[in-house]
Amino acid sequence: MKNNIESIIKYLKGSNDDFIVTSHISPDGDNIGSTLAMYYTLNKLGKNVYHVLDDNPPQNLKFLVENMNILKSEEVNLDSYNIIALDCGDKNRMCISQKLIDNAKKIICIDHHASNDYYGDFNYIDTEASSTCELVYNLLIEYEKKENINIIDEDIATCLYTGLVTDTGNFVYSNTHPSSFEMAKELLSKGAKKDTIIQKVFQSNPYNYYKLLGEALNTLDVVDGKIASITITKEMLKRNVISFNDVDGITPYTRDIEGVEVGILLKEKKENEVKISLRSKNYVDVSKIAKSFNGGGHIRAAGCTIYSSIEDAKKKIVEAVVKAIQGDKNE
Amino acid sequence: MKNNIESIIKYLKGSNDDFIVTSHISPDGDNIGSTLAMYYTLNKLGKNVYHVLDDNPPQNLKFLVENMNILKSEEVNLDSYNIIALDCGDKNRMCISQKLIDNAKKIICIDHHASNDYYGDFNYIDTEASSTCELVYNLLIEYEKKENINIIDEDIATCLYTGLVTDTGNFVYSNTHPSSFEMAKELLSKGAKKDTIIQKVFQSNPYNYYKLLGEALNTLDVVDGKIASITITKEMLKRNVISFNDVDGITPYTRDIEGVEVGILLKEKKENEVKISLRSKNYVDVSKIAKSFNGGGHIRAAGCTIYSSIEDAKKKIVEAVVKAIQGDKNE
Repeated sequence: MKNNIESIIKYLKGSNDDFIVTSHISPDGDNIGSTLAMYYTLNKLGKNVYHVLDDNPPQNLKFLVENMNILKSEEVNLDSYNIIALDCGDKNRMCISQKLIDNAKKIICIDHHASNDYYGDFNYIDTEASSTCELVYNLLIEYEKKENINIIDEDIATCLYTGLVTDTGNFVYSNTHPSSFEMAKELLSKGAKKDTIIQKVFQSNPYNYYKLLGEALNTLDVVDGKIASITITKEMLKRNVISFNDVDGITPYTRDIEGVEVGILLKEKKENEVKISLRSKNYVDVSKIAKSFNGGGHIRAAGCTIYSSIEDAKKKIVEAVVKAIQGDKNE
Repeated sequence: MKNNIESIIKYLKGSNDDFIVTSHISPDGDNIGSTLAMYYTLNKLGKNVYHVLDDNPPQNLKFLVENMNILKSEEVNLDSYNIIALDCGDKNRMCISQKLIDNAKKIICIDHHASNDYYGDFNYIDTEASSTCELVYNLLIEYEKKENINIIDEDIATCLYTGLVTDTGNFVYSNTHPSSFEMAKELLSKGAKKDTIIQKVFQSNPYNYYKLLGEALNTLDVVDGKIASITITKEMLKRNVISFNDVDGITPYTRDIEGVEVGILLKEKKENEVKISLRSKNYVDVSKIAKSFNGGGHIRAAGCTIYSSIEDAKKKIVEAVVKAIQGDKNE
């Protein structure tokens, strides 16, 4: 079913079933934020709601879930339930068991990924939106108007603000629209704990992180002046006691160099498994490159995994980027 | 004279004299942005206006002044003129000659520094404002309403957006208010070239900058878990061919560490002259510390110069910060 925000509100209002809220694997700020915001909302609306996630939030987002009871799929035993899948572009990337997905009464999909094929029974997809949190915000504003109630409180505002700033690189990326600032203004007025979010998300790196960053900058490699890469091996992570999920903040360093169009961060997860983050500045669609390696994402920020040695993965991804730069420049 | 936005508009409208727009020494994004915005505005209003600045903008702001004719004080030969001093907390820190200051018919001061003593004949000072650009924005919106004209075009919006993002650390600092987001929304709608600003200001560091950053991170020193410092010597700058004015972006690294309250960047300008940038996270008023060394600034971001060796300067400033942390915690 195509977009219908009205029918989602109607269904949420009318349903007496339980709800599971979840998002995609390797959770980031936008999906933790949007999932929690929906959790708090459904709770407020008097529904039974469960936050299910078979993965752990990264360290810098733990402040959001401190008092939450997040369940693993095997802990869930429900008869009749709906799933609200947030920020999850692909039905198979939902961070819950296949069994839970298969037995859901209805799936409500709220997302902004270009790759989304409207897999929900209800969908609210907008690929132009800054973040899934912006879509949840729109939904809640609409709900508030329609039912003449207040939903967005300090907690919900804080969750939504977190997703907005993590998915826009704190208002840096080109997905930042006037509507994003309108939302930021309103959330701040409604008590979003901006300073806490900024400190926890962006300003609380452990001292070791900077030691790792120093090492990582030593690997900075620029090809043709347009492509820059940084390589982080599992030995570097181990040596500096930094976990694999906690170094994504290094990705922008690869792109933020004068003249560079595409930045690449290569992170070795284990032997022959390299996670790759891609960023572009002006004209290269990195989601296409990621897709060619079975990954996904957005035009200016995408990711994929290459199953080979880190040297080989670097060779392959740089080759693909070189080709893309030539192609996208000629388009 | 205390604040009177009405009388500034009236004076700007009525005056047939020439105008000099200027800002403080060591210009940053907020003063280049606010000065240029006033320049464009006065031009639009049919006034003769001169941008006078006895200093050079930093490399990452040159895109704003590419087509501007910025004059040095000695090139100016005017009979009757007013000065608009933007983002300049102290009459003596204006970046023009004393002679020009002394002979001005009227001084109009638009500023947000806490240290401002209302030295203008007309003043629009708001120490709560995110930036002087936000004050110029308010003035122009008021002017537009009063006179029923359009002033803010793409160029002006771009200048004002630059000051807003540089003075709020791109909406990070606690001086970011709902009104800042309202302004950002409006400027983006009016054509502010956000993506260009972001790229030029934050994402166009030369490759060498990252080599320097790597070296700088090696000097990262944490005292008591609460104070972190980075030291940049003139040899480091020389070795990496990076100019003294182009490394201020390294300051936040000192503050963005888990548990750290005050970050210190020490930059050696020449022998026995060390420029110090201070940042705090939650409770230390660094403007007080800076003031005790004859510097100034804001509660969470301030600066000063210590005339001694870099080792000695570090010792002195760390001592002052330790004292301030003890004091401010007990207050």
